[in-house]
Amino acid sequence: MKITILGGGGFLGRKVAARLAEMGSLGGKAITGLTLFDLVAPPPLAAPFPVTTLGGDIAELPEAAIPPDTDVVFHLAAVVSAAAEADYDLGRRVNLRGTDAVIDACRRLAKPPRVVFTSSIASFSGGQDGLLPDDTRQIPANSYGTQKAAAEMLLADASRRGFMDAVCLRLPTIIVRPGRPNKAASSFFSAIVREPLLGLETDLPVPDDFKVWVASPRRATEWLIHAAAMDTAPLGLDRSLNPPGMCVKVSEILAALDTVEQGASRLVRRVADPVIAGIVGGWPAGFEAKRAPAHGFTAHEPLIDVIRAFVADDLEATRTERGIA
Amino acid sequence: MKITILGGGGFLGRKVAARLAEMGSLGGKAITGLTLFDLVAPPPLAAPFPVTTLGGDIAELPEAAIPPDTDVVFHLAAVVSAAAEADYDLGRRVNLRGTDAVIDACRRLAKPPRVVFTSSIASFSGGQDGLLPDDTRQIPANSYGTQKAAAEMLLADASRRGFMDAVCLRLPTIIVRPGRPNKAASSFFSAIVREPLLGLETDLPVPDDFKVWVASPRRATEWLIHAAAMDTAPLGLDRSLNPPGMCVKVSEILAALDTVEQGASRLVRRVADPVIAGIVGGWPAGFEAKRAPAHGFTAHEPLIDVIRAFVADDLEATRTERGIA
Repeated sequence: MKITILGGGGFLGRKVAARLAEMGSLGGKAITGLTLFDLVAPPPLAAPFPVTTLGGDIAELPEAAIPPDTDVVFHLAAVVSAAAEADYDLGRRVNLRGTDAVIDACRRLAKPPRVVFTSSIASFSGGQDGLLPDDTRQIPANSYGTQKAAAEMLLADASRRGFMDAVCLRLPTIIVRPGRPNKAASSFFSAIVREPLLGLETDLPVPDDFKVWVASPRRATEWLIHAAAMDTAPLGLDRSLNPPGMCVKVSEILAALDTVEQGASRLVRRVADPVIAGIVGGWPAGFEAKRAPAHGFTAHEPLIDVIRAFVADDLEATRTERGIA
Repeated sequence: MKITILGGGGFLGRKVAARLAEMGSLGGKAITGLTLFDLVAPPPLAAPFPVTTLGGDIAELPEAAIPPDTDVVFHLAAVVSAAAEADYDLGRRVNLRGTDAVIDACRRLAKPPRVVFTSSIASFSGGQDGLLPDDTRQIPANSYGTQKAAAEMLLADASRRGFMDAVCLRLPTIIVRPGRPNKAASSFFSAIVREPLLGLETDLPVPDDFKVWVASPRRATEWLIHAAAMDTAPLGLDRSLNPPGMCVKVSEILAALDTVEQGASRLVRRVADPVIAGIVGGWPAGFEAKRAPAHGFTAHEPLIDVIRAFVADDLEATRTERGIA
C-alpha cells in the first residue's frame, strides 16, 4: 500500500511517518511507498520501504505528492490558529484551497483513497463551561476553526460522491509539542511543560484553573493510524469524529510536571495575554466523546505518562535542535 | 443607501428588486442606488432610484458589482441543487468561490456592508421524520447543501472579523415558482401547482404523503428585506437563521390547488423518480423555528393564500413568457 503525508514535515506528520516506518504495514497490508509533502521538502526518513520527500504549495498540489496508486492520504497540512487569525488570505489558501486541491488530486486517482484529515476543537465554541456532545454544531470563534469546519464538510461531501473515503478527527490541543513556541494560540500549553524541562522560563497567559481538552502526541498518532485503517461504512454521511481526549486544568499539568521534575513549575510566569486567552477561551473545555470510542479510538493515558513520554521521545532532540546544553 | 443584488436576474432577486423599488427606502433610509448583477445582465427595472444592471462571473466578481459606498448586498447567486450535484466544479466555483469573491469585495469597502445570504434547508439531513431544532448540526446529503453550509461558516467568520455584517437565511423550498421547471431537485413542488394552472400535465416524483418545508415567494421576499435591516448585534457569532416556513404534505398542496381551481390536480401524474426522491427525501420535513421569529421574521400565511398569490403575481407573466394562450 502507498501512503502520502501532506504536512509530512510537521510535528504530527513526522510522528506518523516514524510510526509507519516502525510498523512496516497498515491494516494488515505491507507499506510499499511513502511520500512526505510539505512547504519545504521534509528530511529523509529511514524506513523498510521507499520514502519520497517533496516540497511545494498545497493549494497548487503537485501530482507527484499523491501518486496515482495512493491508498491513504494523511492531510495534516495547515496554517495554525493564531497565524490564520493574523493572515486571512494565507489561512484560506492553505486550509481551504489546500483541501480543494487534495479533493481534486483524489478525483484523479484510480481508486478513492482513504483520507485522514486533522480538524480541530477550535472549530467549536463552548468555552470553559462546555462539555459538548458529539452532535454539537460547530460555531467557530476564529478563522482557523472556520476553515477546518468548512473543510470537514467538503471532505464529507467528497466521500459521499466517491472521490475519497475521508475520516476527519477534531484533534484536542496536543501537549507536549517539542521544538520552539509556534504561532498556534495553544502553543503555551506545551511550553509550560517543555520550557521548564529545558530549564527555561515561560509565560502562562491564562489562569491556573483554566481547563483545556488535550491529547498527547503518542495518542494522536495512534488515532491517526487507526483512522487510516478503520471501517468507515458505519460512519455514513458524518465523517467527523471527536476522539477521546481529556479535560485537564493548567494546575493539573503543572502538578504533573512537578512530579516528573520537582519544582520545575517555578519557571512558569503568570503573564496574562487577553488576545491568546480570548482565542483559547472560546474553545470547549471538554467533550462527551462517545462516538469515536465506539469506532475503536482508544482512551487517553494519564497526564503524568504524557509528560514522561515527552521526556522519553522528544526532550533530547529539542535540546539539541535549540542548542541548549 | 446603496444596494446590490447578486443573482439579481433570478426569481427571488427580481422579487426583492421589485419590492425595493416599491418601498423606495430600507430600514428608514432612502435607497439612492441599486445594482443588479447576474451571469447575464438582468433586464432594466423601473424604480424611484437609479438602477444599474451588470453581467459576469461571480467567482471573478467585477468591482462595479459592489460599488465602494454599498450598504447592503443580497447574495442570492447560486448553482441550484440538482445542477451542483451534476457538476461538482461548477457548484464549487459559484457557490464557494463566489462567496469568497463577495467576502473579498466587502473587505475593499469603506464600511462593512450588511450581507443577506440565501442558504438552504438542503444543508441539513433529517428526512421525512425530521423536526429540527434551531441548533441542529448541518450534515448535508448533497453538494449544494454542503457548499451552502460551508459558505454560511465563511460569512459568519467574515462578520466576526468585521469584513461585513452577514445574515444567512436557510430558505425552505419556495413554492410557487413561476417560469419553467428548472434544475433544482425541488422544482416539482412548484410545477405541481403551476403547470395545472397553465392547463398542462406534470409529474410528481414522490408519494402524495411526502412532507416538505415550504415558503412562498412573498414571504421569502419579506424575510430577505427584514434580514437587510434587522439589528444583528443579538445574533452573536451565529449568523444563520431558520425562518418560519411551514411543513405541508404534497396532498395538502394539491387540495389547496383544487380549492383555487376545481379539479386542477387531475393533471398531476404520479411518476416515481428515485434520483429526485433521493435528494429531496434527505431534506428535513420540518423545523422548530424559534430563533428567527424572536428576531422579527414573520409567520407564514396559509397554503391557499400562497396559491392565490401565485395566480395574482406570476401566472399571467408565466403564460406570456412560455407562449401559452
